[in-house]
Amino acid sequence: MSSDIRKTGLFLVGARGAIATTVLHGLEGLRSGMAPIGLLTERPEFGGLAFAPVSAMRVCGWDVTGDSHRAAADLARVGVLPHDLVELCGEMRDRFERRVAPGVADPRDADLLDNGSRERLALPLAEAVEALRADIRDWMKEEPFHRAVVIYLATAERAAKLPEGWQDPDADPFALLAAAPADLSRSLLYGLAAVAEGLPFINFTPAVGAAAPALAGYARRQGVPVLGNDGKTGETLLKTVLAPMFRDRALNVMAWEGYNMLGNKDGAALADPERKAGKLVNKDAVLGGILRQPTMHTGVSIDFVPSLHDWKTAWDFIHFQGFLGARMSMQFTWQGSDSALAAPLVIDLARIALLALERGNAGPLLPAAAFFKAPLGLDEHDFHRQMDLLRGWLAAGS
Amino acid sequence: MSSDIRKTGLFLVGARGAIATTVLHGLEGLRSGMAPIGLLTERPEFGGLAFAPVSAMRVCGWDVTGDSHRAAADLARVGVLPHDLVELCGEMRDRFERRVAPGVADPRDADLLDNGSRERLALPLAEAVEALRADIRDWMKEEPFHRAVVIYLATAERAAKLPEGWQDPDADPFALLAAAPADLSRSLLYGLAAVAEGLPFINFTPAVGAAAPALAGYARRQGVPVLGNDGKTGETLLKTVLAPMFRDRALNVMAWEGYNMLGNKDGAALADPERKAGKLVNKDAVLGGILRQPTMHTGVSIDFVPSLHDWKTAWDFIHFQGFLGARMSMQFTWQGSDSALAAPLVIDLARIALLALERGNAGPLLPAAAFFKAPLGLDEHDFHRQMDLLRGWLAAGS
Amino acid sequence: MSSDIRKTGLFLVGARGAIATTVLHGLEGLRSGMAPIGLLTERPEFGGLAFAPVSAMRVCGWDVTGDSHRAAADLARVGVLPHDLVELCGEMRDRFERRVAPGVADPRDADLLDNGSRERLALPLAEAVEALRADIRDWMKEEPFHRAVVIYLATAERAAKLPEGWQDPDADPFALLAAAPADLSRSLLYGLAAVAEGLPFINFTPAVGAAAPALAGYARRQGVPVLGNDGKTGETLLKTVLAPMFRDRALNVMAWEGYNMLGNKDGAALADPERKAGKLVNKDAVLGGILRQPTMHTGVSIDFVPSLHDWKTAWDFIHFQGFLGARMSMQFTWQGSDSALAAPLVIDLARIALLALERGNAGPLLPAAAFFKAPLGLDEHDFHRQMDLLRGWLAAGS
Amino acid sequence: MSSDIRKTGLFLVGARGAIATTVLHGLEGLRSGMAPIGLLTERPEFGGLAFAPVSAMRVCGWDVTGDSHRAAADLARVGVLPHDLVELCGEMRDRFERRVAPGVADPRDADLLDNGSRERLALPLAEAVEALRADIRDWMKEEPFHRAVVIYLATAERAAKLPEGWQDPDADPFALLAAAPADLSRSLLYGLAAVAEGLPFINFTPAVGAAAPALAGYARRQGVPVLGNDGKTGETLLKTVLAPMFRDRALNVMAWEGYNMLGNKDGAALADPERKAGKLVNKDAVLGGILRQPTMHTGVSIDFVPSLHDWKTAWDFIHFQGFLGARMSMQFTWQGSDSALAAPLVIDLARIALLALERGNAGPLLPAAAFFKAPLGLDEHDFHRQMDLLRGWLAAGS
Repeated sequence: MSSDIRKTGLFLVGARGAIATTVLHGLEGLRSGMAPIGLLTERPEFGGLAFAPVSAMRVCGWDVTGDSHRAAADLARVGVLPHDLVELCGEMRDRFERRVAPGVADPRDADLLDNGSRERLALPLAEAVEALRADIRDWMKEEPFHRAVVIYLATAERAAKLPEGWQDPDADPFALLAAAPADLSRSLLYGLAAVAEGLPFINFTPAVGAAAPALAGYARRQGVPVLGNDGKTGETLLKTVLAPMFRDRALNVMAWEGYNMLGNKDGAALADPERKAGKLVNKDAVLGGILRQPTMHTGVSIDFVPSLHDWKTAWDFIHFQGFLGARMSMQFTWQGSDSALAAPLVIDLARIALLALERGNAGPLLPAAAFFKAPLGLDEHDFHRQMDLLRGWLAAGS
Repeated sequence: MSSDIRKTGLFLVGARGAIATTVLHGLEGLRSGMAPIGLLTERPEFGGLAFAPVSAMRVCGWDVTGDSHRAAADLARVGVLPHDLVELCGEMRDRFERRVAPGVADPRDADLLDNGSRERLALPLAEAVEALRADIRDWMKEEPFHRAVVIYLATAERAAKLPEGWQDPDADPFALLAAAPADLSRSLLYGLAAVAEGLPFINFTPAVGAAAPALAGYARRQGVPVLGNDGKTGETLLKTVLAPMFRDRALNVMAWEGYNMLGNKDGAALADPERKAGKLVNKDAVLGGILRQPTMHTGVSIDFVPSLHDWKTAWDFIHFQGFLGARMSMQFTWQGSDSALAAPLVIDLARIALLALERGNAGPLLPAAAFFKAPLGLDEHDFHRQMDLLRGWLAAGS
Repeated sequence: MSSDIRKTGLFLVGARGAIATTVLHGLEGLRSGMAPIGLLTERPEFGGLAFAPVSAMRVCGWDVTGDSHRAAADLARVGVLPHDLVELCGEMRDRFERRVAPGVADPRDADLLDNGSRERLALPLAEAVEALRADIRDWMKEEPFHRAVVIYLATAERAAKLPEGWQDPDADPFALLAAAPADLSRSLLYGLAAVAEGLPFINFTPAVGAAAPALAGYARRQGVPVLGNDGKTGETLLKTVLAPMFRDRALNVMAWEGYNMLGNKDGAALADPERKAGKLVNKDAVLGGILRQPTMHTGVSIDFVPSLHDWKTAWDFIHFQGFLGARMSMQFTWQGSDSALAAPLVIDLARIALLALERGNAGPLLPAAAFFKAPLGLDEHDFHRQMDLLRGWLAAGS
Repeated sequence: MSSDIRKTGLFLVGARGAIATTVLHGLEGLRSGMAPIGLLTERPEFGGLAFAPVSAMRVCGWDVTGDSHRAAADLARVGVLPHDLVELCGEMRDRFERRVAPGVADPRDADLLDNGSRERLALPLAEAVEALRADIRDWMKEEPFHRAVVIYLATAERAAKLPEGWQDPDADPFALLAAAPADLSRSLLYGLAAVAEGLPFINFTPAVGAAAPALAGYARRQGVPVLGNDGKTGETLLKTVLAPMFRDRALNVMAWEGYNMLGNKDGAALADPERKAGKLVNKDAVLGGILRQPTMHTGVSIDFVPSLHDWKTAWDFIHFQGFLGARMSMQFTWQGSDSALAAPLVIDLARIALLALERGNAGPLLPAAAFFKAPLGLDEHDFHRQMDLLRGWLAAGS
C-alpha cells in the first residue's frame, strides 16, 4: 500500500448496516495485515496507480437506527466477520458510534427510526440536505479529512416515479426540492449534499441517485464524479459473465430463470413488493442487454429466507439450444456472504471515485460500469467489456 | 450465406464418429433452412466476412470402422439429431459412405479395424502418409473441390512422449518418419498429409498434432495454417469463462474440482487411463493459466457412464474466499450433447482456417485460441481475451 | 401379466391431454412388449395379485378441445414418447378419437372449447351429470367393458370455496346440484357421474373431488371407492421421501424452499394465480405434516417456462441445523417428464381402484395415499409409511 | 432428560479427533441447555425410554497423537463448534487430556505417534489388548463409572484381508492373537478389550471390527452387544433414503454416480488408496442392496480438498428411466459438517448399546442398522425399514 497518509473519509449512508459494518472492520483487518482479498484495486496489475491508501481511510456516516456493536456480533456469529477481529474492535466501534449522524428518512418509515432521525423527519427537504451538508463539513474538519466520498448503502427503497423536472439535466436540483413530494428518493438528498460539498457520490443501491438527470447534470457542472447504480455482487455478476459466452458461441438461450434467497435486513425489506420491484428490474435487464434474443424467457425472484442471514443463495437455470436445436441446460448455485461480497467493492469504488475526481472526470463515471447492475450512462452489461473499459481508463492516467 | 458456390471439402478423420455424423447432417439441415445455432461465423457481427459458404460444403474423410447410418440412428434416438432429418438423409449417407477411405490406425488397435484399415496397417509410416495424400488428391479431383481442410476428430489417443527430433521446428518431418516408432501419434500422419497437400490442418483432439514443432515448422514453411489443440466445448469452456471473474474480483479460489461424465465412444475410450491422461492435463491447465494462485487445489476427472450416451454432464465445485477470508462457493452443472456442441465449432474452424490460408497466415493460427483447450502457440486461456483476439484478427482483414 | 382378458375401461377426463396421450400410447407399448417401467403394480413383489391386465385395458374419455394426433407428435418431438411408437399408433388414435366425448366445462372457459363441449355448456348441472352418465353407459355397452374407472386429469381448476351443503357427508349430492353455482368444480360432476354408475373415481388433480364430504359420503353409500387428490409425481414426492430422514435424524429444518418450472399446458394454466393457489397449498402442506416444526420457513413456487414443455424441472434448497446448531444444507434438482411420471401412476391407480371395488372398499381409499399430494382421509405424508400402508392392504387380500 | 445420575463412560478411540472433540464439547453444551439437535434418542417419540442421561456422560479415550485444545480451536474456526462454547471449555479440556491414554497403533504409522503411543508399539498384540483393558479398568474405578461403552472412531485404516481363523465364530480370539500379523486391524484389539471387560463395542469406521466372526462370536458368548460398521452420516444416508423411492416407483436407475469431497484428517487419510478402498465399498454397496438392478452403473469417489476442512460436500447424479423409457435425472448436493453429523450418532449409539446390554442383547445388534453403512448381521439398507426395525425394538422393551 501507498505511503500517502493524508486521511480519506468514507461517509456511508446506512452506517450501521451489514455492509458498512463489514467495511469498518475490514479496514481494521487490512491495517493489521489481513490479505486484501476481494479488492480489485490491490491486484498486482494495478500496483502502479496512486489509489488512496486503505491505511488512512476512516468511516463516518448516517443511519436512522441500529447499533454497530450488535451488527458486528451478528456478522461474527454467522461467519462473515472473524470472531477475534470483532472482539479486538470494540473500542474502535465506540469511537465510530460518535461519528454516526442521524439520517434523513422516508416519512413512511417513521416508526422504525431512533430519536435523532425522527427529529430530522420534520425538516423540509431543502433543510434536510443542508443538515447533511453540515454533517459532511463537520466530519471533514474534525478529523480532518483530506478527501472523502459519500456512499449510499441504504436499505432498498420503495419504487417510485421520478417527480417532474428531475428529467432535465439542466434543472437546478435545489429549486426542484421545494416542489418535490415528501417521499422523494433519499438517494437524491444524499447525492445533492455530496455533490454540493464537492464529494463524489456512489450509489450502491437500486435507488435512482444519479440516474436522475438533474442530479447527474448538477454533478457535471460541479466537476464531481457520480457512480452507480446497484452494486453487482453475486447472481447478476454471474449473468453478465456467462451470457457473453452464450452470445459468442451463438447458442440460443430459450430461458434463463434466476431464484434468489436472502435472509438479512435487505432481504426482509425486499419482502415488500414495492421495494423488490426496482431490484428485480436491474437483475433481469442485464440479460436482454447482452443476448438481445427477443423470444428468450427470463424470470428472476428474490425470497426472504431468514435462516440464511447474510448468506445469499441463488440458483439459476439456463435452458438453451445448440446445433440443430439440440436442447441443453446449465444450472448454477451461488452461495456467498452479501456483505463480504459488497464491502471490498465499496472500498474499490471509493478509491476509483477519488481518482476520477483528481483526474477531473465529472458526472457519471462510465468506466465504473463493471461494479454495477445498472451502470450510469452506459448500455454495456458484458462484464469483460466493462473490465476492458475500466482497465483502459485506469491505464490512461497512469 | 454467401453466394460463392465453389465447393469446399471437409476431410474428417473419424468420419463415421458422432461429431462427424453431426457435421454431415448439420450441413444438410442448414441447407434446408434450419437456423445456424451454434455457428459463430454466422453471427450478424461477422456478416461482412467472406467465409466459405455452408451451402457448398461437402464431407469426405477417413475412418477405421463403423457405419454412418447406425451412428445417425443412435444420435436420433438419444435426441441429438432430429428424427426427420436423419430419415431424409438416407441416400445422402449412402453417397457419403462411398467417400470414406480406410484410416491409418495405431497397430495396438488392430482388432478394432475393418478390412480396409487393417490392410493399411501394414504400410510403413511414410507410405501411410502417401496413401492419405492420394486420398486427398482423389477427393479434390473427383468432386471437384475448390478448397478443403483436414480436421482431426479421431478417438482420444494414448498419451505418449514425442519421439526424438520432432521438437525441432526446422527438422524435415518426412525424414523423421523413417525413424519413428510404429505407434507414432496418428495426428502427425494426417497433419503431414494435409500440410504436404497445402490443406489447413485442424486438430480437435488432445493428440499432439501441430504442438509437435516439426509439424508446426513444416506448416510454416509450406505456407499452411494449422489449428488446435483439443476443442473447448463444455466444462473447460466454462472454466475459461468463469475464472477471469474470480481473478478480476480478486477472489481467492482455494479449490476448483471438476467431475465429468460421458457415455459415448469417446467416453468409453477415456476409461483407458492412458487415453484419459492427455485430456485431463488440458482440462486442468486452463485454471492455473488464468488464476496463477499457487496454493489453489484443482482436480478434474472423467467417468464413463454409458447411459448418458452423447450427453455429457459435468459438475464443478469452486470454493473461494472473499473479503476477510469469508468462505463461499459456487457450483454448476452442465448438461449438453457432446456432438452438438462440437459440430458447429468444426464448421467454424474450417471457415476460419480457409480464411487464414487465403490471408497467408502460415503455421499455428493464434487467433483461433478461443476454440481450444490447449491453444497452439499461446498461453492465454481467458475466453474473453481469446475472443478479443479473434475479433481483432477477423476485423483486420475485412 | 395376468390372463384375465375381460376388458377394462379407463375413462379419462382430459382425454387428449399429455398424460392421457401417454397412457394411451403406453398401453400399446406395453402390449408390444416394452418393459413396464414406472408401474408399481408390475413389480415382482406384487406378482401374486390379480390386477386387471394391462393387455385388456382400453382408453375412452372426455375432452373439451384438442387433438390426440398433435398431442402425440408433440410428446415425441420433446422426447417423452418414442418416435416409432407414435408412428405405429396412428390408426389406434383415429379409433380413439371416436371414443372421445365432449366435456362439461367451466363456463368461464367458454372460448377455449370445441363445438361439442360448447353445446354441453348450456346444460344445467344435473343434466350435465346425466350426459356424462350416458357417455359411461354407452362406452360400457359398446366395447363392451367388464369393468371401468373414471380418472380426472383435467387442467388445474381455479381455486374456489366449496358451496354450502357439500360439507355434509349425508347430503344428497344430486339435491345439492340444483342450488350449486354454475362454476362448481367439474371434479364433482365427473365424480358424481362415476359413482352413480358404480365406477371408482380417481382424482389426479388438485380439484376438490371426493375431498367434498358430500361426494365421499355418497361413494360410501354406493359402495364405490374414491381415490385422490393430486398425483404425487416429482418435487412433492421427493419432499415426502426426504423429510422423514430429517425427522428421524432429529435435524432442525430451518427452511425448505422449492422452485418448480413447467412448460406444458398445465404449466400455462398455472400462470393463472387462481389456478396455481390450490396446487401450491398441496405442495407445501406435506412438509408441515411430516416435520411439525412450527418455526420452519417454507416456500414453493411454480413458474411457466415454455421451452421446457413437458420436462418439469425443480430445485429445492433445504437449510438445516445439526448438532450444536451447525448450519448445513442440501439441494436437489429434479428433471423429469411430467407425463411419463404421471401416466404409470394412472394405470396403477386404476388397477388398485378396481381391486378395492372388488374387495368392497367404499369411500375414500386410504391405502392409496402414497400416490397423492393430498391423500383423502389421511394425514400421513411420509412416503414410506404410505407405502407400508399400501403393502399391508395389498397383502391382506391376497 | 432422565434423572438417573449414575455416571456413564464414553471411551473413544481417536479421542482427540474431530468427532470425539465434538462429542466432548457437545455434552457440555447439552448440559448447559443447548437444544439436542441431531439426537434421535431425544426425540419426543422416544421420551418414555430410560436412556442413560446425557448429563451424566463423561468422555475418556485413547489417541496416538494430537491435542484436544487445538482440535477444538480448529472446529470453532471453521464454524462447527460455537466459539463461546470452546472458550468456556478450556479447563474441561485440561481435565480431559489427563484421561487420554496412549493408543495401540499400526506399526506402519510409527512416525505419526506421540511418545506414549510409540512405546506401546513394542507390545505384542496380546499385551497391547491387556494394556487397553487396564486403561478401561482404571477409568471405571477412578471416576467411578456405573457403565461404559467403547466407540471406535480411529482414522480410516488400510484395507486388509482378515487373517486365518478369524472367520470362525467359535474361535478363541485371544488364541488367534498370538498368530496374527503385526498389522492386524486395530479395531479387533479395541473390540476384544471392550468385550473382555463386558463393555459394548461400537465401530463407527469401515474397519472390520465385529464383522470378524471371531469377535462377534466372542461378544455373543460374553453377553455383550457389538454395533457397527461405518457410521452413515451424509451421502450414503441419502442413498439409502432415496433409493427406496426409485424402487417403489418402479423407476429404472441406469446410473448413480457419487462424488465426495472432504478436507479433514479423515479426508487426508483417504487420499491413500489403501485406506480409501474400504470406505468406497461400503458407500457403493448400499445401492445394489436396495435396487437389485444388475445393469445399473454406479460409481463413488472421495477426494481430499483441504480448504473444505470438516465440511464434506457431495454431489450425486442419478440417471433413470421412467415410463416407456423416458430418460430423467436427479442430482443433489449435500454440504454438512462431518463431525457435527457424526457426534450425535455416537451419543445415540452409546445409549442404544447400553440399553441393549441391559436387555441382554448379545453379539451384533441388528436394530442399530439405521446408523451404519455396512450394518452387522443384516442385508437391509433401506433407511426407512431400518428405522422401523429400530422403532420396533425400542418399543418392544419399553
